[in-house]
Amino acid sequence: MAADYYYEDFVQGEQFMTGTHTVDRDKVIAFATEWDPQPFHIDEAAANASIFGGLTACSAHIFAIFCQTSQQWPGGARPQAVASLGFDDTRMLKPVYVGDTLQCRNTVEVTRPSASKPGCGIVGARCELINQHGEVVFSTLSSFLMRCRPE
Amino acid sequence: MAADYYYEDFVQGEQFMTGTHTVDRDKVIAFATEWDPQPFHIDEAAANASIFGGLTACSAHIFAIFCQTSQQWPGGARPQAVASLGFDDTRMLKPVYVGDTLQCRNTVEVTRPSASKPGCGIVGARCELINQHGEVVFSTLSSFLMRCRPE
Repeated sequence: MAADYYYEDFVQGEQFMTGTHTVDRDKVIAFATEWDPQPFHIDEAAANASIFGGLTACSAHIFAIFCQTSQQWPGGARPQAVASLGFDDTRMLKPVYVGDTLQCRNTVEVTRPSASKPGCGIVGARCELINQHGEVVFSTLSSFLMRCRPE
Repeated sequence: MAADYYYEDFVQGEQFMTGTHTVDRDKVIAFATEWDPQPFHIDEAAANASIFGGLTACSAHIFAIFCQTSQQWPGGARPQAVASLGFDDTRMLKPVYVGDTLQCRNTVEVTRPSASKPGCGIVGARCELINQHGEVVFSTLSSFLMRCRPE
């Protein structure tokens, strides 16, 4: 991949894997204690007795893992993003357990020039987190304003 | 509000404010350093020189603040949520700066019985974070599976 990845470098249908992240027990509890203190995220006994059968990461933690891993591109390539335009169709599809290793898969779905920002284009990518069993646990359609390649 | 808030308690069009959160400088840097290490989130000089003109919270941090504040209901009422069904139309509408105080506003948009889960209903709420200037800085449509009131 190019070291600097501009709007023109994105091709509809292109798919690539980015970073991985292994979910840490203490981090699951600490993150949820601060941001989403539900018993099944912060208390091991309550989690074991819940429908999940064990400690699971809260939605905000999963979203943070997506933000982290989706930026770790192959070969250290740097997407030339100007701003996030938002997220659509965000789904937590399966529980994320302590010890799971997640990898992010990005598929380019949309590329179009920006009508309002000269020198920029819009890229929409389906971003998924996949666990060590090959299950998609999280999915979102992420839209970014990307810089065009300098002339 | 009822102490335990069940599916039947949600009324389309109902609007209420939940918790507040003041954005801390060290937390903005620590959160972004771990999950989204862009210079304008973690380096004060780079942030001042950016289009934002100061340190701003990363998207994952804003989403976490939404998760935290949206659960802090008036009078300690407890929504009887079973599971999040996901988030649609999530938008970061304005930068969130260090020192901003955000409050969450929830507006019930959809209520319908669950076709697949007996004893549950689906509630969709537009959730917005509003800063101390009255500006909406974040917006999402959050869908939850809610327990029906026990007979």
